[in-house]
Amino acid sequence: MYSLMERLYPLTRSITGNGTRQTLNIIKEYIPIIINEVPTGTPVFDWIIPKEWNITDAYVKNSKGERVIDFKKNNLHVLSYSQPVNTKMTLEELKPHLYTLPEQPDVIPYMTTYYKEGWGFCLSHQSFSGLKEDMYEVVIESTLSQGSLTYAELYIKGETKDEIIFSSYMCHPSMCNDNLSGPVLLTALVEGMIGKKHRYSYRFLLVPETIGALAWLSRNDNNLASVKGGLVITCVGDSGDMTYKRSKQGDAYIDKVVEKVLRDTGSPHKVIDFFPMGSDERQFCSPGFNLPMGSLVRTLYGCFPEYHTSADDLDFVKAEYLEDSLMRYREVVEVLEWNETYINQSSKGEPRLDKRGLYRAIGIKTNTKMEEAILWTLSFSDGQYSLLDIANRSSMSFALIKEASMQLVEHGLLKTKTD
Amino acid sequence: MYSLMERLYPLTRSITGNGTRQTLNIIKEYIPIIINEVPTGTPVFDWIIPKEWNITDAYVKNSKGERVIDFKKNNLHVLSYSQPVNTKMTLEELKPHLYTLPEQPDVIPYMTTYYKEGWGFCLSHQSFSGLKEDMYEVVIESTLSQGSLTYAELYIKGETKDEIIFSSYMCHPSMCNDNLSGPVLLTALVEGMIGKKHRYSYRFLLVPETIGALAWLSRNDNNLASVKGGLVITCVGDSGDMTYKRSKQGDAYIDKVVEKVLRDTGSPHKVIDFFPMGSDERQFCSPGFNLPMGSLVRTLYGCFPEYHTSADDLDFVKAEYLEDSLMRYREVVEVLEWNETYINQSSKGEPRLDKRGLYRAIGIKTNTKMEEAILWTLSFSDGQYSLLDIANRSSMSFALIKEASMQLVEHGLLKTKTD
Amino acid sequence: MYSLMERLYPLTRSITGNGTRQTLNIIKEYIPIIINEVPTGTPVFDWIIPKEWNITDAYVKNSKGERVIDFKKNNLHVLSYSQPVNTKMTLEELKPHLYTLPEQPDVIPYMTTYYKEGWGFCLSHQSFSGLKEDMYEVVIESTLSQGSLTYAELYIKGETKDEIIFSSYMCHPSMCNDNLSGPVLLTALVEGMIGKKHRYSYRFLLVPETIGALAWLSRNDNNLASVKGGLVITCVGDSGDMTYKRSKQGDAYIDKVVEKVLRDTGSPHKVIDFFPMGSDERQFCSPGFNLPMGSLVRTLYGCFPEYHTSADDLDFVKAEYLEDSLMRYREVVEVLEWNETYINQSSKGEPRLDKRGLYRAIGIKTNTKMEEAILWTLSFSDGQYSLLDIANRSSMSFALIKEASMQLVEHGLLKTKTD
Repeated sequence: MYSLMERLYPLTRSITGNGTRQTLNIIKEYIPIIINEVPTGTPVFDWIIPKEWNITDAYVKNSKGERVIDFKKNNLHVLSYSQPVNTKMTLEELKPHLYTLPEQPDVIPYMTTYYKEGWGFCLSHQSFSGLKEDMYEVVIESTLSQGSLTYAELYIKGETKDEIIFSSYMCHPSMCNDNLSGPVLLTALVEGMIGKKHRYSYRFLLVPETIGALAWLSRNDNNLASVKGGLVITCVGDSGDMTYKRSKQGDAYIDKVVEKVLRDTGSPHKVIDFFPMGSDERQFCSPGFNLPMGSLVRTLYGCFPEYHTSADDLDFVKAEYLEDSLMRYREVVEVLEWNETYINQSSKGEPRLDKRGLYRAIGIKTNTKMEEAILWTLSFSDGQYSLLDIANRSSMSFALIKEASMQLVEHGLLKTKTD
Repeated sequence: MYSLMERLYPLTRSITGNGTRQTLNIIKEYIPIIINEVPTGTPVFDWIIPKEWNITDAYVKNSKGERVIDFKKNNLHVLSYSQPVNTKMTLEELKPHLYTLPEQPDVIPYMTTYYKEGWGFCLSHQSFSGLKEDMYEVVIESTLSQGSLTYAELYIKGETKDEIIFSSYMCHPSMCNDNLSGPVLLTALVEGMIGKKHRYSYRFLLVPETIGALAWLSRNDNNLASVKGGLVITCVGDSGDMTYKRSKQGDAYIDKVVEKVLRDTGSPHKVIDFFPMGSDERQFCSPGFNLPMGSLVRTLYGCFPEYHTSADDLDFVKAEYLEDSLMRYREVVEVLEWNETYINQSSKGEPRLDKRGLYRAIGIKTNTKMEEAILWTLSFSDGQYSLLDIANRSSMSFALIKEASMQLVEHGLLKTKTD
Repeated sequence: MYSLMERLYPLTRSITGNGTRQTLNIIKEYIPIIINEVPTGTPVFDWIIPKEWNITDAYVKNSKGERVIDFKKNNLHVLSYSQPVNTKMTLEELKPHLYTLPEQPDVIPYMTTYYKEGWGFCLSHQSFSGLKEDMYEVVIESTLSQGSLTYAELYIKGETKDEIIFSSYMCHPSMCNDNLSGPVLLTALVEGMIGKKHRYSYRFLLVPETIGALAWLSRNDNNLASVKGGLVITCVGDSGDMTYKRSKQGDAYIDKVVEKVLRDTGSPHKVIDFFPMGSDERQFCSPGFNLPMGSLVRTLYGCFPEYHTSADDLDFVKAEYLEDSLMRYREVVEVLEWNETYINQSSKGEPRLDKRGLYRAIGIKTNTKMEEAILWTLSFSDGQYSLLDIANRSSMSFALIKEASMQLVEHGLLKTKTD
C-alpha cells in the first residue's frame, strides 16, 4: 500500500481532471476497476457537474525573475480550480489572492474554489511574511472547459444480491492521510477478496468527494434497496487509534459489526455518533437515502493538525498503520461473511458434549475458553441470536464463537435458521 | 416582579378569605384574570369546599397587658384556619396550642389546620422559651362561615386548541419564595405574552394549593384532552440553581422542552423525577388525570431551611433571581412556539448551499457554527426529528437550530411536515 | 439447617447410588418429599440414565501395608464413578490415576468421571509429593450396575396453578457450600411454608445436577407452561455477599423480585447476567425451555478457592450465613405472594387522607415515611404499576409499600385490578 501511495503522491488531483484520471489508471494496474466519465453540465440532484479543470504550471515571480511561489514544487500552492491568470501586480493587489494558516506558519494550506470562479495561491505564513513590495508576475496555466468528472467502480458478485459498499475518494492533491490512504487501503482490500467466494456482493467506489458520490448515487438511485451496509474509507494511515463514526441510523448492522471488530482488538478505540460534517457519508446518509453507512478511520479528519496541509505527507502516514487499518477492514468482511443465526438441534437441555469430544470427560474446576464458547453458542442459538449477538452477550471474540459454531455444525448440533 | 411581591407580602392569605381575594384583585391590575368563587360546601371529588376563614386580630396578652404574641406583627403567628377564641388560661393550658421549631429557634413556623377544627399560635422557639407562668388573655378574632373559595384563571387563545397550563398558588400568608414568587412570575410571564400571536393556547391558573387545583379540575374535567403540557410555578426567587421536577409521565413533551432549556443555559441545574409530594402537580398528575405537567423551580420546597417559616421573607427572594427564572419560563414558551418538524426539500444528498449564500465558497479547514447547524438541520429533517430533537442530537442550542431552520425555510429547503 | 448439614456431610453422594438415596431419606424426616427413581438406560433427551454407582471402600496401600490414600478418611479421595479396581502397581503406573491441585497443595480436589469409564484417586498435592517409589496395592470396591437415578420433589398447591420452582441438587459428596447448603436451605424454606395458604403453587426439586434436572424436565416437558419463575439454590452458606445470577431472559418477573429483595437489604450484593456455565439453570434456561429461572447464591461457584475441594467443609459454612440466605429466600416468597396491582378508587386528585387517619391534620414541614408511602401507592396505582413497581420507582422498601397498600385497601381506597 505504501509504495502505491508513493506513486500516487505527486499527481495533481482535483474533483475533475487528468490527475484524477491518471490516479485511477495506476490503481487499475492492481485491481480491475471500471472507470466512468460524467460529462460537464450533467445535472446531479441539486448540483451540476462542473467544468473540467487541468493545470500545467503556476507561479508568482518577483522582479528578479525568481519564483517565490511555485506550483512545480508543491501542487498545494494553487487554490484548486483556479482560473487561468497571466498578469502583473503589486504585493498589495496580490494579497487578497494569497491564503495562509497563521496559526501553523510552516505549512501550506489546502484550499479549493470548486464552485465559485476565482484564483489564488496557498503558501506558508512564513513565506508570506517574507514577501516584499515588488511588481510580481502572476501566472496560472490552467484550463476550465467542457470535459467530465471521472470515477471508478468495482463489483464483486456474491451469493446474494445483498450488497456492502466500500467507498473512498481521490480528489485531493499531494496529501497522504486525507486522502491517499483511503484509495490504497481500498485497493489492498479488493486484492485480498477478488476471486474468492462471498455471501454478500461487494461494491467498491473511488469517487471525487461530494460531487462524485452524488454522481454515483444519481446514476444508481433505483438500485439502492440491496445496500445492506457500507463504510467510507479515509484517514487510515496515521498513528492514532481507530475511530468508528456510526451510520446515521446509529444501530445498523454495519455499526454492530464494526464496533465488535474494534472491541475484539482489545486496543483503545473510539466510537462516535454520526454527524453531518465529514466525508461522503454526508451524501450516503442524507435523508433521501439514509443508507446504513459509517466510516472507519484512525484519527478523524480535522482532528490532526496536519489535516488539509502540506504536512499530511509521506512521512505522516506509515506503512504499519495502513496495514493495521487493513486488518480491521478485513475483519469487518470476515464478520459479515461468517455471521449466521443458527438453531440448536438439541435444544432441550444441553446435549452430551463429552461423547462428541467437545467437552472434557473428567469433571474439574474450570472450563476451557472453547468449552465456554461452545456452551454460549448452544445456549443462545434459539433463532433470536446471531453469532455476533452471542459474541457480544458473552463478551467473547467473534473469532472464538465462530470457531465454536463450526465445531457444533460439524457435529450436527447447529443448523442455519431458515425463515 | 419584586415590587408586586412587596405589595402582596403583608396580606393574610389562606385557602379561602379576603386576603386571597385582595391578592387576586391587585394582580388583576396587571393582567386580566377572571376571578371565580366556589361556594362553601361544594363537593370536589373526594373533598368539600370548606368554610371561608377570615381574621382581623389575634394575640396572647400577659397579665401586664403586653401582647407577647401578636398577629399584627406577623400573620404567621396564627395557626391558619384557627377558630375564634377569647379566653384566659395559664401557660400550662396554653402550651398545647403553641407551635415552634426547636431546631430553628429564631423563626416562626408556618402551620395550618384547614380540615380539623382547632386553634393555635406559632412563634419562635426563643420567644416560647421566654414565656413565664402567668394568666394569659388569649384572643383570636376570626370567623369560619359560609362563603367561598376564590381562584383566578386567564386564557390566551392560540392558533390551535392545544393548551399549555401554567399554574401557581396564592394561599400562603407572608412568605416570599414559597409562594409569592410563583404568582408574581406568572403575572410577568402573562404580561409578556398577552396580545401576541401564539401557536398554542395558554391557560394560567392562580388557585389555593390542593383544594383550589381540585376545584379547577372538577369544573374542567371534560376539557382536559387538549392539555398538551404544563408547569407548576413555585419557589422561583431564591439564589439556588434551577431544578426541574418531571411530570409523572417522565418523558412527556414538556419534560423534553424544559430539560433542553436548562441544558442550553450551560449553567448547573438539576432534573429530578416526579414524586407525589410537593405542590399541585400532585393533583394534575393523579392517576385520574395524569396530565403532562412538571414543575420548574429553583431550590425545591423543603430543601431550603427558610421554607415554611418567617425567614422566607422579602430579603430571602431577590429580584435578579426572579428575572432569571422568568427568562427560563420565556424560553420554554419560545421552544414550544418554535419547535417544528420540517421536511428537507432537497433530500437526496446535500443541496448546494454555497450558491444560496448558506456556506462559504472557498473550502477551508473548519466550518462555522451556523454552517454546522444548517447541515444538522438538513440532515435530520426527515420527518422523524423535530428541531428540538435535532438540537438534542447535535448538542447545539435550540436557538441556533431554530435560526438555521429559518434560513433554510427562507431558501425553500425546508417545509413544515403536514400529516 | 446447620445440624441437618452435619448429618448429611459424611454420606458419599454421587449422581446415583445409595448415598444420594440416604440423603433424601434423611431430608424426608423433615419435609414430605416424594422420592422418584429413574431406571438405568432411560433416555433423557440427548442423554441416557447411567449405571448406578456404589462404593464401600477404596485405598492405596504401600508395601508396609499403610493406607497412603484412604476413602474411609475422606470420600473425595476417589474419583467419583470410578470402576472397581484391585491391582498392584508402581508409583509410575499409578500416577496417571492420581489427581491433585498443585496451586492449592493442601486440599483434595473433587473430581468425577460420570460418563467415561475410568478410575482414579484425588489427593492433596502435598501428599502426592510425599509418595515414594514402591509397589502399591490399589483397591476400589465399587459397583457400576443396573439401578436407577434418584430425585425428590415436593409440591405445595396454591390458589393458582401458576408455579414457582425452587431447585437444588444433592450429588456432591462431603462438601458443604457446594452443595449441602442448597438442600438444607430448601428444607428450611419448605418447613416455613408448608401448611400455609399461598397464591402461587410452589414446586421444590432435589435432583442430581444436570442429569437429574434433565430427568425431571423430560418427565414434565408438557407441564411447564405454568412455571412463572424459579431459583436454583446453591452456595448459600459462605461469608460472601449475596449474588443474583439472572435468568437467561434477564428481565423476567423473578429477576425483578430478587433484585428488589437484595436492594431492600441495603447491603452490598451483586447482580450478574446469565451465563451458560454453572448449575441447573443451564438446563432450565436451555433454548428448548428458556424458563424464567435464576440463581440466588452467596459467593458464586468457582469464585471461592474452597470450591470443589475438601476445604469446602463444615468450617467453611456457618449457620449465620445459612440463616441470612434463608431470610432472602423468604423475602422472595413474601414479594411473590404480596405483590399486587391495585387500582386507586379515588383517582381524580388525592383523596382526603386526614379524615381517614392516614395523614396528619396539622400541616407541618415534613411527611412521615408512611405518609409518603401512602402517597406513592395512591399516585401510581393506575393499573400499570404493581406494588413492586411502585417500590422500585419510589426507592422505598417493598415492605413499606406493602404496608401502605394494606392500609389503603382497608379504607377502600385501593382495589385489586381485575383484567
